[in-house]
Amino acid sequence: MIHGGDILTYKNMYDGDIIDFSSNINPLGPPECFNEAVNHAVREINRYPDIKYRELKKEIGKYLGCSEGQVIVGNGAVEIIDNISSLFNRVIVSIPCFMEYIIRPKVIGKDVVMVDSLRDFSIDERGLIEKIGAGDLILLGNPNNPTGKRIKRDVLISIQREAERRGAYILLDEAFYEFCPPDYDSIEIFRGCSNVFVLRAATKLFALPGIRLGYACVPEEFAVAYNRRALPWSVNAFADAAGRAVLKDKDYIKRTKEYIAEQREYMLKELGSMDFIKTYNTVSNFILIKLLVGDEDSLFNYMIKQGILIRKASSFAGLDKSYIRLAIKSTPNNQYLIKCLTQFRGHISID
Amino acid sequence: MIHGGDILTYKNMYDGDIIDFSSNINPLGPPECFNEAVNHAVREINRYPDIKYRELKKEIGKYLGCSEGQVIVGNGAVEIIDNISSLFNRVIVSIPCFMEYIIRPKVIGKDVVMVDSLRDFSIDERGLIEKIGAGDLILLGNPNNPTGKRIKRDVLISIQREAERRGAYILLDEAFYEFCPPDYDSIEIFRGCSNVFVLRAATKLFALPGIRLGYACVPEEFAVAYNRRALPWSVNAFADAAGRAVLKDKDYIKRTKEYIAEQREYMLKELGSMDFIKTYNTVSNFILIKLLVGDEDSLFNYMIKQGILIRKASSFAGLDKSYIRLAIKSTPNNQYLIKCLTQFRGHISID
Repeated sequence: MIHGGDILTYKNMYDGDIIDFSSNINPLGPPECFNEAVNHAVREINRYPDIKYRELKKEIGKYLGCSEGQVIVGNGAVEIIDNISSLFNRVIVSIPCFMEYIIRPKVIGKDVVMVDSLRDFSIDERGLIEKIGAGDLILLGNPNNPTGKRIKRDVLISIQREAERRGAYILLDEAFYEFCPPDYDSIEIFRGCSNVFVLRAATKLFALPGIRLGYACVPEEFAVAYNRRALPWSVNAFADAAGRAVLKDKDYIKRTKEYIAEQREYMLKELGSMDFIKTYNTVSNFILIKLLVGDEDSLFNYMIKQGILIRKASSFAGLDKSYIRLAIKSTPNNQYLIKCLTQFRGHISID
Repeated sequence: MIHGGDILTYKNMYDGDIIDFSSNINPLGPPECFNEAVNHAVREINRYPDIKYRELKKEIGKYLGCSEGQVIVGNGAVEIIDNISSLFNRVIVSIPCFMEYIIRPKVIGKDVVMVDSLRDFSIDERGLIEKIGAGDLILLGNPNNPTGKRIKRDVLISIQREAERRGAYILLDEAFYEFCPPDYDSIEIFRGCSNVFVLRAATKLFALPGIRLGYACVPEEFAVAYNRRALPWSVNAFADAAGRAVLKDKDYIKRTKEYIAEQREYMLKELGSMDFIKTYNTVSNFILIKLLVGDEDSLFNYMIKQGILIRKASSFAGLDKSYIRLAIKSTPNNQYLIKCLTQFRGHISID
């Protein structure tokens, strides 16, 4: 499977440091408190992490606004997706979506039902509701990757109610939640609902993809079932220590929101003015574009020669070779990307 | 499930630092090169780990004496056990054994066949061979936890041949291999066999349980199937960096072998001379004992008051409350343990 962030595969194609626009990581870099957390973990590294992750779950509960008993943790969000999927009959997704929503359930022998949201990349509420059966898991990105769209509050509530009525469950993957402008908090609106799981992650928000820490707020009874399914010690000591530290750094999260909002506006404006691409609006820290001439390969090959790694998007179910996903990065990197895209435009002709 | 190393659960029972005889970690502590590896990981933490773990697999291959393509890696040995089990029909184990051999396959819906080796804790070769069916996975600890025994070379070869004849596979969990006196190398004797997987881990040997790094040598075609099953980025950046560094530290491994050999001899002699316990011979860094009076609870409660955490062994299938497992630790800690056991003896009467 193709993923963003695979710089190593392409490093011989450019003589210098490649700027990675293919993975959606906070451009501010890890918060300062991370270093102290690492030192703490190193001092205790010859012990097993707490097999129950008591302190970590307490901090996550505080951060999410739920009880410690509602928190589950995993080796990155993808492990939680895998484990939760294993506990249900079928998995219903809305494509295009993060491909692991489709791959992981299939790997563990589950049927995956794909509902098409390709027309305008908004969820096909009626089409999705039609498919829901008892014991199904509806797995939705919110905001969705690669489209960068949040699900409308009303649509989400309506899907949740119908799922509840039919005995189905919803897993909202909100790994990019903190990058979005404030709209609603799924944990808050579904408080008390027994069929909703809200997944978040430290990976993207704190620029720490290497530590592997995912967490979710779920009903307490479900947390018990989840913990029976999960591997022991699946969260490593560095992720445990980092999670306890970084979630307290409100200032970092605030600065992130402001920085991304500003850069998103800049990028959407610049990309929106280019005549050879169609830019889809986003509330997240990445942008889906459609090439109106050429395909992902021609742009990819041009950009890698400029030291820029972009994400070809044809590997997302439902998208073809005309789509590209771009991360929102630091001001100078974003400006350089726009400059390179403008140069690329100079080399092509549009009939 | 009960595991060793759960100090947090008992920390209120002793006013001071508890000495953990319940988890089997190298008493030398992590090698010095680990700190440099951590610094390296921190510098690159805002990137995803290499999704293919190319450098890590190269180092592990060199260390194990196999090709890079034969190496698989996981978030601790237990993730590899889980993933491999998922690819076979049934799992055959010899009890007593590490309980995750039984729990993990059951959690993922596999039948587990338990062959009894309780008489003298040597594998019941004929009993085991009788059970083997096509597509089964025979999962054996070598040395075995909690007994500390290696499988005899001839027995192992005979099981492997019979498994091959019947279309079955063997997973040898050799997480404690490096603590044992040299006898044979499973990777060497089964080179070219298509039905043997040899699992090792950095956790115990390098005193790094918190980093979560397991690895195995498997046939190349099986590695391809395994990688399809495994989660992406399951090895975190610290484990990736540490694995690349510590496996080169031959001197540390040599010192470990010598230290453990010396301390094992001391412990076996001291424990062997105590009249209220039966001590089972071990080649590993832990020792199974049977209490001839009282039970695990009375000894546990006495020892925790002395600041010593021991491993009750009744949670191992086949063992009752008369069994205890003790780790081999540093000289002063081992001496303190022996002293406390001697004191305990003073409080009990044997008819």
